[in-house]
Amino acid sequence: MQIDRLPKEGETMSAKTGQTLAGGKGANQATCSGKLSYQTFFIGQVGEDAHGRLIIEALENGGVVLDCLNVVSNVPTGHAVVMLQSDGQNSIIIVGGANMSCWPEKLKDGDLDVVRNAGIVFLQREIPDSVNIQVAKAARSANVPVILDAGGMEGLIPVELLRCVDIFSPNETELARLTGMRTESFEQICQAVVKCYEMEKSQLPIISATKVIDTTGAGDTFTAAFAVALVEGKSRMESLKFAAAAASLCVQVKGAIPSMPARKAVLDLLHSL
Amino acid sequence: MQIDRLPKEGETMSAKTGQTLAGGKGANQATCSGKLSYQTFFIGQVGEDAHGRLIIEALENGGVVLDCLNVVSNVPTGHAVVMLQSDGQNSIIIVGGANMSCWPEKLKDGDLDVVRNAGIVFLQREIPDSVNIQVAKAARSANVPVILDAGGMEGLIPVELLRCVDIFSPNETELARLTGMRTESFEQICQAVVKCYEMEKSQLPIISATKVIDTTGAGDTFTAAFAVALVEGKSRMESLKFAAAAASLCVQVKGAIPSMPARKAVLDLLHSL
Repeated sequence: MQIDRLPKEGETMSAKTGQTLAGGKGANQATCSGKLSYQTFFIGQVGEDAHGRLIIEALENGGVVLDCLNVVSNVPTGHAVVMLQSDGQNSIIIVGGANMSCWPEKLKDGDLDVVRNAGIVFLQREIPDSVNIQVAKAARSANVPVILDAGGMEGLIPVELLRCVDIFSPNETELARLTGMRTESFEQICQAVVKCYEMEKSQLPIISATKVIDTTGAGDTFTAAFAVALVEGKSRMESLKFAAAAASLCVQVKGAIPSMPARKAVLDLLHSL
Repeated sequence: MQIDRLPKEGETMSAKTGQTLAGGKGANQATCSGKLSYQTFFIGQVGEDAHGRLIIEALENGGVVLDCLNVVSNVPTGHAVVMLQSDGQNSIIIVGGANMSCWPEKLKDGDLDVVRNAGIVFLQREIPDSVNIQVAKAARSANVPVILDAGGMEGLIPVELLRCVDIFSPNETELARLTGMRTESFEQICQAVVKCYEMEKSQLPIISATKVIDTTGAGDTFTAAFAVALVEGKSRMESLKFAAAAASLCVQVKGAIPSMPARKAVLDLLHSL
């Protein structure tokens, strides 16, 4: 919703515009990976409501396999209300809903089999740690690499989870919080990354976008494209380049899921460089 | 959404719970009237999105005829985000969307024919006055009574519209605003009503609810039930009693549309008195 300012207590006010879009880090990353033509399964929960149908539709359109998607009753689909204010400030209210509740204590064997047979596993902190830990352990037991997105709930990441993570993916804000360092320039980001992990800055490929329309979903696109390239056998360097190309296409189109590129568009861009 | 307090600028916070329900005065009143088994048409607009599908579903379940419902592209379905705070204060942000934009300058002849052939017409101020005026004039030209709900946008009601209104329906807050009088007790409400219109207080029937679970939609239920009874030939007094019975059933069930009673339930309650 675009609003002039936040409402006061008891106030009813009008937004300038507003729309409802499918999203969430997990759905975004799965859809992007599906659109890049890698067979993708989504393990997750939605409620029996309009928001749930919207997410199912987006995943289906991305070609994601939904056998492990659980529809739960009496709890809303996880969603967020984003209040964009005219001064550029955003306030966000998150409704955890089916993302945060109604999970079985133990995930189904069938779901964990999907994890063990995967090429790579994405985890995001928008569901309980206990669920992520089960998935991460199943992946580790089968030598399936695990990418953990640093976004989602704040709070410490349990050691049990971190131990099973192969690739950790923060954005610059999360990196700043994790390292206590500034991440406003490319130099600063590199220094903060070095604090997390030994990595030379020459390893970071940059693919500039010709225009930037909307950065929503660009991080999820980067993560998913990196993973797809990696699992297909490309080197880390090549995978980072594939991811940078996908993200640079993403920021040139409005929206999160609608802006995720098909594989051909990414390959065309890479060939043109 | 239930939240502890309003978010600050730039803040991301979690809601305790949240759900998405079909609503809006027009959809509520049409659904209630349909559930009371009076053939009901809905003239209105929704967007091509999940919220629009939710409203279409609710209207269909209420048995409302949707021939005059227009689905418009590139604009969201009108909706509101209600932020319920723990201290009982509610802040509401309204997204006008398809309710407020993309209306044709002149309504279709077919839609106005439906109006001219109606038993009674409900108007609410959640769409532009210019649309309401066209409908009200068509109704008046065919001697179809018009009920105008005082809720929705504030601002003066155009004289052109008021001239075609037979029954004006404010709730106590709206009555207070219109008359500048207090409306906190039954006595005060009666005095404010007298200021609007000559009416003896003995004419107001009261049907107490045995319990009050949720008053959402009770006003819309009252209005719609009153209209249905009136158009079926009952006296104003009998119609008010029918409306009071319907509303007293409505407040005993959670939600707006799910709590609207079927005709049989209303008749059973009236017979039991």
